[in-house]
Amino acid sequence: MPNSLKNVRVVLSHTSHPGNIGAAARAMKTMGLHDLRLVQPKQFPDPAAVAMSSGATDVLDAAVVTDDLATALSGAALVVGCTARRRDLSHTMLSAREMAPLLLAQAANAPVTLVFGTEMSGLTNAELDQCQMLVHIPANPDYSSLNLASAVQILSYELRCAVPELAMPAAAQQELARHDDLELFYKELEQTLVAIGFLNLAAPRRLMTRLRRLFSRALLEKEELNILMGILKLVRHPAQVNVPKDWDIVD
Amino acid sequence: MPNSLKNVRVVLSHTSHPGNIGAAARAMKTMGLHDLRLVQPKQFPDPAAVAMSSGATDVLDAAVVTDDLATALSGAALVVGCTARRRDLSHTMLSAREMAPLLLAQAANAPVTLVFGTEMSGLTNAELDQCQMLVHIPANPDYSSLNLASAVQILSYELRCAVPELAMPAAAQQELARHDDLELFYKELEQTLVAIGFLNLAAPRRLMTRLRRLFSRALLEKEELNILMGILKLVRHPAQVNVPKDWDIVD
Repeated sequence: MPNSLKNVRVVLSHTSHPGNIGAAARAMKTMGLHDLRLVQPKQFPDPAAVAMSSGATDVLDAAVVTDDLATALSGAALVVGCTARRRDLSHTMLSAREMAPLLLAQAANAPVTLVFGTEMSGLTNAELDQCQMLVHIPANPDYSSLNLASAVQILSYELRCAVPELAMPAAAQQELARHDDLELFYKELEQTLVAIGFLNLAAPRRLMTRLRRLFSRALLEKEELNILMGILKLVRHPAQVNVPKDWDIVD
Repeated sequence: MPNSLKNVRVVLSHTSHPGNIGAAARAMKTMGLHDLRLVQPKQFPDPAAVAMSSGATDVLDAAVVTDDLATALSGAALVVGCTARRRDLSHTMLSAREMAPLLLAQAANAPVTLVFGTEMSGLTNAELDQCQMLVHIPANPDYSSLNLASAVQILSYELRCAVPELAMPAAAQQELARHDDLELFYKELEQTLVAIGFLNLAAPRRLMTRLRRLFSRALLEKEELNILMGILKLVRHPAQVNVPKDWDIVD
């Protein structure tokens, strides 16, 4: 796990439902966060928290419970409050996406903290006073009530996406068909379409161009091209060819 | 609500826990999505779904329950499967962020669909065959087990975040072929391959799966599908059909 995510702390203040604590722990862990602090949770530890954490009980077990927000923030270099509502005071307000690189840059040097208030009413004004900026998740203005764990999930996700080293590894690439083989295929296809009477070379109506575009978009793999060539050969010479053996299906 | 989000459908297949259906409905609504379809949910309707939906009972009430995935996909122009694991066959795999603008661009014209499999094992291979591309949420490789509703939340969030980008002049979109017509095409293709002796149904060697994935990657347009159907008909019934008139080449 990159050090920058290790330095991101999540603080849940006065959470009402232990299930939400468990779900938040799971959400954190899926994105590589592990440092959870709980300010006066209503019920914790609790079986509902364990149930909702799925396999993230390590995060729950390591969670630190504190009596006040100040203690939970101890050592943090940047404190960001999560809010659904527009706040009147003059905090800097960032979107989740804007927040992520900023928070991570700080996390390279020191612990940074995301703070979440209660399910019903969010952060109190006294809690907001301890935040240096606010973060906001874009949402439906008619129904912006994200579940607590969902909010933790999205902010954790944005943080993970902002770690450059964690950019998704590219999918294993199949070998693409070569240009020359593609051209042979198009030639064979054209002759086949003429042979079956679909293409009239005297009035081609850009048919081959359309088909080229279609197959180009698919970025044909070598093996797929062999399949297509095998089909064309059977269409034109049904007597001569059996099911071709020069390709093989591999999953 | 922007029209493009109105055209995004969420399909949950064989969901085990009704609470997850409710939480997913809530997640959708927070991001402005409303069209939910449920393929053989284990328990639905259910009080746990209502409880977890918070105020999103309107999404639950309007949810359509179907017996199979094909019915849930009816009318959809682009079908994207959500997967946590790397899949071996050659679907296009996009990250959540890459998926969003692509899906929204299509949603401007026709319904598009995100498909989620069961909580335990995700999408089956048969379900994957009906998807044109896959989307993947970047996650901790040691613990990538996102809650179902969390996955719905993140993908819905990414879609919402991508809406302003529609302000950018997009390339003119061709109308994509509909799911139902694609299925007719695959059926016709299979029968043709059997007829010409390329496909042996007793030893199919995953040929149809390969071909499905190839054409899925191409995101076939409506007109292109007409061309392909015309070709197949001529291959099977050379005497009966002249060059079809039901498509026209436009560049």
